[in-house]
Amino acid sequence: MMPQWIIEKKRDGQALTDKELRGFINGYAAGTIPDYQVAAWAMAVLWRGMTPAETAGLTSAMLESGMVLNTASIPGPKIDKHSTGGIGDKLSLILAPLAAAGGLVVPMISGRGLGITGGTLDKLESIPGYRVRLSEKEILGVLAACGCCMAGQTDRIAPADKKLYALRDVTGTVPSIPLIVASILSKKLAAGLDGLVMDVKQGQGAFMKTPEDAQALAATLVAVGRQLGLRVTALITDMNQPLGRTAGNALEVVEAIEILQGRGPADVTELTLELTARMLIIGRKASDRTAAIKSLRAIIRSGAAFKKFKAMVHMQGGDVRVLDQPGLLPAAPIRDPVRARHAGFIQAVNAEQIGKACLLLGAGRTCVTDSIDHAVGLSALKKVGESVARNEPLAVIHARNRKHMAAARALVSAAFDYTDKPVAPPALIITELV
Amino acid sequence: MMPQWIIEKKRDGQALTDKELRGFINGYAAGTIPDYQVAAWAMAVLWRGMTPAETAGLTSAMLESGMVLNTASIPGPKIDKHSTGGIGDKLSLILAPLAAAGGLVVPMISGRGLGITGGTLDKLESIPGYRVRLSEKEILGVLAACGCCMAGQTDRIAPADKKLYALRDVTGTVPSIPLIVASILSKKLAAGLDGLVMDVKQGQGAFMKTPEDAQALAATLVAVGRQLGLRVTALITDMNQPLGRTAGNALEVVEAIEILQGRGPADVTELTLELTARMLIIGRKASDRTAAIKSLRAIIRSGAAFKKFKAMVHMQGGDVRVLDQPGLLPAAPIRDPVRARHAGFIQAVNAEQIGKACLLLGAGRTCVTDSIDHAVGLSALKKVGESVARNEPLAVIHARNRKHMAAARALVSAAFDYTDKPVAPPALIITELV
Repeated sequence: MMPQWIIEKKRDGQALTDKELRGFINGYAAGTIPDYQVAAWAMAVLWRGMTPAETAGLTSAMLESGMVLNTASIPGPKIDKHSTGGIGDKLSLILAPLAAAGGLVVPMISGRGLGITGGTLDKLESIPGYRVRLSEKEILGVLAACGCCMAGQTDRIAPADKKLYALRDVTGTVPSIPLIVASILSKKLAAGLDGLVMDVKQGQGAFMKTPEDAQALAATLVAVGRQLGLRVTALITDMNQPLGRTAGNALEVVEAIEILQGRGPADVTELTLELTARMLIIGRKASDRTAAIKSLRAIIRSGAAFKKFKAMVHMQGGDVRVLDQPGLLPAAPIRDPVRARHAGFIQAVNAEQIGKACLLLGAGRTCVTDSIDHAVGLSALKKVGESVARNEPLAVIHARNRKHMAAARALVSAAFDYTDKPVAPPALIITELV
Repeated sequence: MMPQWIIEKKRDGQALTDKELRGFINGYAAGTIPDYQVAAWAMAVLWRGMTPAETAGLTSAMLESGMVLNTASIPGPKIDKHSTGGIGDKLSLILAPLAAAGGLVVPMISGRGLGITGGTLDKLESIPGYRVRLSEKEILGVLAACGCCMAGQTDRIAPADKKLYALRDVTGTVPSIPLIVASILSKKLAAGLDGLVMDVKQGQGAFMKTPEDAQALAATLVAVGRQLGLRVTALITDMNQPLGRTAGNALEVVEAIEILQGRGPADVTELTLELTARMLIIGRKASDRTAAIKSLRAIIRSGAAFKKFKAMVHMQGGDVRVLDQPGLLPAAPIRDPVRARHAGFIQAVNAEQIGKACLLLGAGRTCVTDSIDHAVGLSALKKVGESVARNEPLAVIHARNRKHMAAARALVSAAFDYTDKPVAPPALIITELV
């Protein structure tokens, strides 16, 4: 079977067989099928879509391009959460140790940030010494000892996905649901999971801007994941305003620590509890949401979740002193508030604008080779529904220099809308797929 | 402007500006934009199409990636014909010297065959010594001396097209009307033409199988060509049965010589006269079709067209003795007839099957690096509407060996349908776009 026949078949709207997909993806991983043929094929997939069976076939092919983490020797259900990415989304940092303290095993293979979306690995690297590049053996060691591990994709985990992900980024073929689903699920299956809770973000600051797109992605993830034997559930959650009160790497670590200590902002705490509760349920450690949330609150209060986080950070080489003394984390030299021009109620906080401000401050990347400034970002962000007095800070900007401060200030200031009338805070969870 | 933004814009169905197209195509020609980005873009163009203005912009960008043949110093209107390719289509070999004898200058930059479609350059290379790789200076020299020149695309003529053409072949992006039109017209404009007659083939043996596709291609060629200042006219012509009585390289040269001598098959002769008449009209050497055809018949009778052909072949290094003694051309060792199983009238001759038989005999290529056997092919092909007696030959197969002979025989035999009732021969010209 010539590679161009596979491209032509997809171009003409036909479904590819498992055998065709395996041959094509294996050829790509092995380097016998060149980037240019895969790029044309990816655009044809974006155009024509894929059936659920085809998406499952693609996922399997990408999974089979590498190895599967052998988690069988570690007792307990292997359950993970994956988010499609948002602004201020530090949930994973709290959720992984919390779920581990709840009796789950969480082999979280995470990514780096790109564009306005932050990355879990970048946040963790704010902690001096924290190593995200672990071998498969090291990942298993951390998991066995702590019940959770947060590390990067290794070269042997879904290598075809690693190549395709980079290619899609430069060929306009990112927003394809089958390609997104196969990329997420192949990595998750390679981590040896039993179950997955998907957090599909929807809104201005998310990859999926509309309810239709978010619904389609979530439904496909659930259907294809289940077809491949994974217990999957999905929540569609709001990403119109940033999550929590911070955005930026070290600043988000501080907020995550506060939540693990039971004193963080309500929205991130609640959403983390909701997602972790679903993990407990599909991991059969809780019978229903109410019971799960109750037990998770008790785990936080007991300090067990924070202890798990400390143990994981320590095992991955991180300096745990900063977890007790967050003042030791990287800090920006300049901190200025952005103040409300008049009194009122916060009506909207444009997450996309906030993300762009962070990017501008140096907290993110516009291309994969950019370096990150862990210290900069935003804190004390006001939330939709809160009231502000005239001159009260809407947020505090943490900048490396005056030039960045001035540019970020304009974006942050424009991101806030306020009104005279009281505003109800938006629901965190838009839909749950069952 | 990042290359992926251009891809994304086209992917989202927007029209690209001249500036964007120029940047993208120049970057590709210069090697700063890689094949994989162009492949994804080509698939997006195939999906979304292009406006006539966009197609003109793309054509200009491809033209400007190289040089334009400076034909200004050669007196006379520069007019060419281009065919989308068919089986047994040896028209160019007759038409170029005939048009030159009629007072036109014909700088014909031709291609090689690929798949079932033969190539003019391959046919000419049946003539011992004939050189198709000429420099621009040599092309101008042959043109000045003979009025016509038939050579290959040089490295400096539309180099972006040369690269893109090869890439499309392996990425499933060939059947896109804007890409086809830009490829044809950029090369024709680079040859310094004033006018172009397009022969758009339609039918089983053609690239365009349906009337709708042929009409769309012809209309776009005419519209875009005219927008770029070229006098263009197009005929849509039948390619359900092969043209003439031969298919294969040296065999087609023999048939072309016969027509130049006024004694070839009616269909090729008539279609050549029709197309050359349009060239004379757009070259303002004739006022109408009737007058043009009358004068062209006189030119053939006078021997002037054949003399032009001889002069061109001689100047391009070919051995002109074979033109007077076609028996000196490469000949296949085995010649066997395929006989009619019963008496009747020929109802159909499947051009695609005939093309496949020639490919199998070695007369064509399945990939650009294949070599060609100039001697093999088919002769004495019966035409739709002709009657046959039982055991009368339907065609003669010229093969290199018995194995090829047997395989080709099965295909050729299956290509012919005959019936008891008389059949009218099909019209050569389906539509003329004016």
